[in-house]
Amino acid sequence: MTSSLLDPAPRLAASDIPRTGRPAPGAGAAPPLYAELASSLLRLIEQDTLRPGHRVPSVRRMSLQRGVSISTVLQAYTVLENRGYLEARPQSGFYVRPRPLLSAPEPRMARPMARPAYVTLSEVTAQMRALALDASYVPFATACPHHSLFPTKKLARLLGSVSRNDPTLVGRYAMNWAYEPLAREIARRSLLAGAPLDHHELVITVGCTEAINLCLRAVTRPGDIVALETPAYFGFLDIIQSLNLKALEIPTDPREGICVDALRTALEQNDIKAVLVMPSFQNPLGSCMPDGKKERLCRLLAEYGVPAIEDDIYGDLQFFERRPKPLKAWDTEGMVMLCSSFGKTLAPGFRIGWTAPGRQFDQVRHLKFTNTIGTPVLLQKVLADFLRDGGYDHHLRSIRRSYQNLMHLFSQAIVRHFPEGTRFSRPQGSMLLWLELPPGIDTLKLHADALRHRINTAPGPLFSVKDRYRNCLRMNCAMPWSAEIDAALGTLGDLAKEQL
Amino acid sequence: MTSSLLDPAPRLAASDIPRTGRPAPGAGAAPPLYAELASSLLRLIEQDTLRPGHRVPSVRRMSLQRGVSISTVLQAYTVLENRGYLEARPQSGFYVRPRPLLSAPEPRMARPMARPAYVTLSEVTAQMRALALDASYVPFATACPHHSLFPTKKLARLLGSVSRNDPTLVGRYAMNWAYEPLAREIARRSLLAGAPLDHHELVITVGCTEAINLCLRAVTRPGDIVALETPAYFGFLDIIQSLNLKALEIPTDPREGICVDALRTALEQNDIKAVLVMPSFQNPLGSCMPDGKKERLCRLLAEYGVPAIEDDIYGDLQFFERRPKPLKAWDTEGMVMLCSSFGKTLAPGFRIGWTAPGRQFDQVRHLKFTNTIGTPVLLQKVLADFLRDGGYDHHLRSIRRSYQNLMHLFSQAIVRHFPEGTRFSRPQGSMLLWLELPPGIDTLKLHADALRHRINTAPGPLFSVKDRYRNCLRMNCAMPWSAEIDAALGTLGDLAKEQL
Repeated sequence: MTSSLLDPAPRLAASDIPRTGRPAPGAGAAPPLYAELASSLLRLIEQDTLRPGHRVPSVRRMSLQRGVSISTVLQAYTVLENRGYLEARPQSGFYVRPRPLLSAPEPRMARPMARPAYVTLSEVTAQMRALALDASYVPFATACPHHSLFPTKKLARLLGSVSRNDPTLVGRYAMNWAYEPLAREIARRSLLAGAPLDHHELVITVGCTEAINLCLRAVTRPGDIVALETPAYFGFLDIIQSLNLKALEIPTDPREGICVDALRTALEQNDIKAVLVMPSFQNPLGSCMPDGKKERLCRLLAEYGVPAIEDDIYGDLQFFERRPKPLKAWDTEGMVMLCSSFGKTLAPGFRIGWTAPGRQFDQVRHLKFTNTIGTPVLLQKVLADFLRDGGYDHHLRSIRRSYQNLMHLFSQAIVRHFPEGTRFSRPQGSMLLWLELPPGIDTLKLHADALRHRINTAPGPLFSVKDRYRNCLRMNCAMPWSAEIDAALGTLGDLAKEQL
Repeated sequence: MTSSLLDPAPRLAASDIPRTGRPAPGAGAAPPLYAELASSLLRLIEQDTLRPGHRVPSVRRMSLQRGVSISTVLQAYTVLENRGYLEARPQSGFYVRPRPLLSAPEPRMARPMARPAYVTLSEVTAQMRALALDASYVPFATACPHHSLFPTKKLARLLGSVSRNDPTLVGRYAMNWAYEPLAREIARRSLLAGAPLDHHELVITVGCTEAINLCLRAVTRPGDIVALETPAYFGFLDIIQSLNLKALEIPTDPREGICVDALRTALEQNDIKAVLVMPSFQNPLGSCMPDGKKERLCRLLAEYGVPAIEDDIYGDLQFFERRPKPLKAWDTEGMVMLCSSFGKTLAPGFRIGWTAPGRQFDQVRHLKFTNTIGTPVLLQKVLADFLRDGGYDHHLRSIRRSYQNLMHLFSQAIVRHFPEGTRFSRPQGSMLLWLELPPGIDTLKLHADALRHRINTAPGPLFSVKDRYRNCLRMNCAMPWSAEIDAALGTLGDLAKEQL
């Protein structure tokens, strides 16, 4: 099969289209039939099973084989047509549209000099954050998904009933390192993710950020060197700065993650105390290390006796069938300190994260106590209840589809609006795009210009200790698509073009 | 007036007895009339206006002057009789009882050598904490008030309605350093406390513990010296240890707090980077610095240019008329970093604290972001609503009365059960007692022995970096009084006597 527009007629039968798993009983209202059908088709398109130029099964055939009405099928096809995935050809049927985003190449890997450096604070980061929650700015900057993407009503109801049923939770000190029922739910899910944890190994934290802090503090002292991917999440750089550590940036492939050979060289040449990595859907690149590479990384770290702090916060947000395994799955020595949270998947407002810090458990648990004593049990209980029987898997499927769809819409708009020569990443999960604009474009200037149009962006230089990624930009796609968002991307593109 | 049992008849008229302020409309049910009357009388007794041996006004006179029924007055007197404050003398009336607790002297001030030292972790602290929430242990150890002391049902209902009215709070990132309506309520109350704050000066934190951490991190580097009271809250020592700081213990008077002259000497002889103090109801001593002494301390710190980190977590829990002013009230230079929380007064389960870090505001706000990003806005909103119109002042009056009453009952029981020669503090606020047992008694051994009886205690050595306070014990009194609690105190007393 090729993907040319001249491809022969479709070879795909309606029966090839997978049925979306229905939610468990009590897991909330099922999506309408047409939406289910549309998302099944969308998945096939995203997986390149249905390629540009392919004809999708006729409305009549699809209706017969799936046992749904003609109008349901028509509605599904129309939704996909409106979103730019399908086109109707008169007298012929519906075809998969060419995907313009493929015309933009992916970003290149940076190969920085391997020199550890103290981090200096960026005023732009502070300004960007201060505006992050200002509703009058278009929120392209921070990785805060829009609240409409979460089951907030359901969680709010659950919060009401949990507190009504046991008001004493309001009056009890949250002093333990983990509320056991939540730890058990996290442990249960870890089995499915391929890195089975025992609930006794877990420390519940105030978001993933506290988890990363505690793990770093457990294995480093001020002045120590921490290796991390480049570009790196600016929050990591700020934590490293606040703990007076040095950052050593390791080249990272936009598709396959941190370069293990470069890390080996760095380990040979430096006294690295910890490696801070996001092996699955790295922020900002979106790279996901293949299993074999994760295994190699684990072996390398064991060889050098250096702990890894693994931020897996985007790990549940894959667009393909199987959730990527955490690095922790290959950790036989307790050297991987796995960290995550529910901030990108379920309830950002709860600020609940966790870590399984391996052999550093005692130290991390102690640091949790000295840092914040405990995490509100009331909120932990609501999450535990939701994870147990609130339909979390159903919700995860839905939010993954939303993120995937939004990334696609953003990608298309970027191709339409941004200067020719703009490259961007093709993450297979999460909701962040990494853009590399044509050389010469200064995204710090772009950021300042965009603020005047009330658009908040995350310019590339924030993602490195050195003055790197001047022409890069991280784009948050986790917001409802609208004409206004499209227009804001247009404005951003125009501002970039003005610099050429 | 003398306090001898042979005092002549009372000189106090019923009209001298203050009326307890009634709660504002909508602030919850008013306490019954007899309870109001009883607590007015109790306050006079505690303030030594009504002294042992004084006759209280006759039931008939009190009934007439206060405009309440005879049975209401009788009920109030009986309550106080049952609690050991009054005694009925046949044919004569009700008299204030001699107060046995006065027979035990107060603890003495420790005068440690002024040498800074790194803190070593105590396994006993870890063990004590791990058992703190185990309901099968009598909770004398940690300063976690029993949940029944808080308006948990009201807060739970408020939580339900807040989340129902705006479910999006569940789905919004808590990324700002303060939820403005809560900051405004804290600022409003700071005016009444005598240290007016602007809401822009505040950073909301995960409990007072995070606030102390951030403030310490803002003004110190590893290896720096921090001066603090001795005995010191073990949590402070743990934070100092976790930040690789050195602790320098300053002699502290059990009534009037840190010795300013000793601190001056320490400042002359050491490069102290911060002074960590609890000027109002110090944990564990309960000492409260008089205003003049607070002013002297502020002047001293300004003279040396050393910031104070003021933990005011017990400041709202005074037993006398006026809340003690925070040290911050005398801070003209922005050198006092005021920290507090709602953990002892309102909602331990929410883990919400705050700091007004003075001239370190920018640095603390930044550290808040790197440490935990934000504090759940949902919980901040519930507190803001409760503070605005939930009857917080009414609740504070009630919890102060409860703490005072419990401290009195504990004091009496300690006099009954503990070895002769036991001294204990007379805090005028909070809910902690500091006991000094006869020399030779080892409270670490007592702690181990008591655990076998399922009684958890906080032995003295946890409150110092040196091996000090071997015969001391901090006692948490914030739990409903019962025969079981009295029996547990009896067991503890017997175990102590066995060591003699």
